[in-house]
Amino acid sequence: MPLLVMKFGGTSVADLDRIQNAAKKVQREVARGYDVIVIVSAMSGKTNELVGWVEGTSPMFDAREYDAVVASGENVTAGLMALTLQEMDVPARSWQGWQVPIRTTAQHSAARFVEIPRQNIDAKFAEGMKVAVVAGFQGVSNEGRITTLGRGGSDTTAVAFAAAFGAERCDIYTDVDGIYTTDPRISGNARKLDKIAFEEMLELASLGAKVLQTRSVELAMRYKVRLRVLSSFEDTDDNSGTLVCDEDEIMESKVVSGVAYSRDEAKITLVTVEDRPGISAAIFAPLADAGVNVDMIVQNISEKDYEDHPGAVTDMTFSIPVNQVERARKAMEDARASGQIAYDELVVDKDVAKVSVVGIGMRSHAGVAARMFKALAAENINIKVIATSEIKISVLIDRKYMELAVQALHDAFELEKAG
Amino acid sequence: MPLLVMKFGGTSVADLDRIQNAAKKVQREVARGYDVIVIVSAMSGKTNELVGWVEGTSPMFDAREYDAVVASGENVTAGLMALTLQEMDVPARSWQGWQVPIRTTAQHSAARFVEIPRQNIDAKFAEGMKVAVVAGFQGVSNEGRITTLGRGGSDTTAVAFAAAFGAERCDIYTDVDGIYTTDPRISGNARKLDKIAFEEMLELASLGAKVLQTRSVELAMRYKVRLRVLSSFEDTDDNSGTLVCDEDEIMESKVVSGVAYSRDEAKITLVTVEDRPGISAAIFAPLADAGVNVDMIVQNISEKDYEDHPGAVTDMTFSIPVNQVERARKAMEDARASGQIAYDELVVDKDVAKVSVVGIGMRSHAGVAARMFKALAAENINIKVIATSEIKISVLIDRKYMELAVQALHDAFELEKAG
Repeated sequence: MPLLVMKFGGTSVADLDRIQNAAKKVQREVARGYDVIVIVSAMSGKTNELVGWVEGTSPMFDAREYDAVVASGENVTAGLMALTLQEMDVPARSWQGWQVPIRTTAQHSAARFVEIPRQNIDAKFAEGMKVAVVAGFQGVSNEGRITTLGRGGSDTTAVAFAAAFGAERCDIYTDVDGIYTTDPRISGNARKLDKIAFEEMLELASLGAKVLQTRSVELAMRYKVRLRVLSSFEDTDDNSGTLVCDEDEIMESKVVSGVAYSRDEAKITLVTVEDRPGISAAIFAPLADAGVNVDMIVQNISEKDYEDHPGAVTDMTFSIPVNQVERARKAMEDARASGQIAYDELVVDKDVAKVSVVGIGMRSHAGVAARMFKALAAENINIKVIATSEIKISVLIDRKYMELAVQALHDAFELEKAG
Repeated sequence: MPLLVMKFGGTSVADLDRIQNAAKKVQREVARGYDVIVIVSAMSGKTNELVGWVEGTSPMFDAREYDAVVASGENVTAGLMALTLQEMDVPARSWQGWQVPIRTTAQHSAARFVEIPRQNIDAKFAEGMKVAVVAGFQGVSNEGRITTLGRGGSDTTAVAFAAAFGAERCDIYTDVDGIYTTDPRISGNARKLDKIAFEEMLELASLGAKVLQTRSVELAMRYKVRLRVLSSFEDTDDNSGTLVCDEDEIMESKVVSGVAYSRDEAKITLVTVEDRPGISAAIFAPLADAGVNVDMIVQNISEKDYEDHPGAVTDMTFSIPVNQVERARKAMEDARASGQIAYDELVVDKDVAKVSVVGIGMRSHAGVAARMFKALAAENINIKVIATSEIKISVLIDRKYMELAVQALHDAFELEKAG
């Protein structure tokens, strides 16, 4: 029997009507001959309520108790979804993490999958169950305690089940109808993609297109799980949404698939840093220790004459999330005070944004960077920092030009045109 | 290490402040040297919310899914209580039913205990845990599905743990401060009892003094678990509340311990029933099949002349809850239509109430019934039906006299006086 995994997020199961609506989509796949594993999140708002109680009780909470409390939200939805399917004469039952059992590490609130044994669920499929409704986001440790995977873990649960059960596809039902070439709120020309490669999705997800959890895409890529993102709130069929898949499945890629952005960036420059082996480690180790997420890094060989510095000197520039600026400043000042590093000045620019073009076609096409820079130059947008990878080129620019840059790049790469 | 079981109901854990308050009572017992097993209900309102969702989803719900959904309320409280205790530096952890594991029958929503193995919890006590916070009302079946015990099952969970762990006492914290000689809202002379025998409590509970679930008292009596009812909302000490215990622990009982009542009764009389062996079975079997709870039964040998009935005839009177009258009427009419029974007329009186005096001292004292009837006669209250047991005398009277009867009996047996 072919098998599908279908995942419904919190807004898709927010109340009994929406659960009913989601169940109809499941019923349709069962009618077409599939066995289905449904992964559900908590009804929207419920996880926040539970987290609020835990935090209200204990600021430095025991993560094992946090997990035991918070995981109950998904258990409720799983039971209600199973009941809804039964009302539609679809043989269904709910599964809590420990009933499968979904074995995870004991890193509470950030657990990772160890094993998803098939035998209990397979035995029930063999007895005539058509739908296993599994509570997402949770598992059980070796010690028999309830674990959770951290926020957004239900996407990852869905992909892990699809991998364990050899599912034909993993459908992620959400409140958007697919992955777009860029944010439709910024460019009216944004176009929904029919397909996107795992690698591209990873770059887009981590850059702010927050449709899928990065971790679930990584897992899907590793196990080659075909992942589809589609809307809970529209009629859907086999051609709906966007398929996230291996690049082999994408016949002819465009050079650039999408334009991503990240609004809340900051640029920090350490002016007049000693240019010696080990200086990068001396700067970035304290930042990492302080929990600062450094993204782009550029080391300038300055042209100017550093008269009062006898040795070789340089400027070091990097970007971080804007809400981590004070943490970064303190880490650098402490490192300077302790003599680990030396610099003349720490310059902060909090008014920058990152814009990136992403596409696996870049690998085989030259000239993408030139075309990007030309498009930005045509709008008189100054580029402050550049970083490139195999399938992505990112630039840091003044935040006020962010929307303009996204639109210009979307037009320059003709992303409004299909295929 | 001596061990206590402490149970907190829904109003006692209704919000974080009340959980805090309950935790302080637990902390106090730990400070006095006890290991403690805390049994918690769902925060008040939560079970109703969950039940509402299940019923809204599926009118004829699968009880296994109902149980899986509804049991989550207690799991949340257990985690929050464990966190609260940890904040007070009391080593505590939460236990869901399947983690103990609390083994029950597979009668979902009405499961009964099969076994409460001690080893998992004892192992944690041995490692230094001082408090095991156990989710009440739930267990797990042989098939690994979550079961619930039915409403009020947390009291029963508490008693079962007290029996399994040989607890010194089982303290039931609730929103009243003990068991009274009668309802204080009816008699201003009502007095809190220091002690009451299991048998007396059973008669009082089933008659409407709804402080403790009947089933939990039965279980306590069978395993000789000393049960204490006391208030969550007051400062309490070793002398607080009412101890429900074996009659051996009660030095000198009064003849009557309390006056109970049940307001919503109905009296049904089948007029001119054939008086033959097997007639009672022919009447009451269809009522039982229809789920009618028959309480008192009286068979009158009527004095009147049944001219048109050649054989021996009688009238049969019984009492039932007033909301079951239509069900009973239909069962009787169906039985008559099918020829199982014959009667001339079915007379219903929906305006009756039951008043009872209860006391283990009755066993060794004659004249209690006479004293009761005299007290009611003095108020001109007509007795419609009488039923007696070893430790209880009940009468059915017009509902409008119920309060008056309770007051008169409370005074007649001098229940306002202690000892």
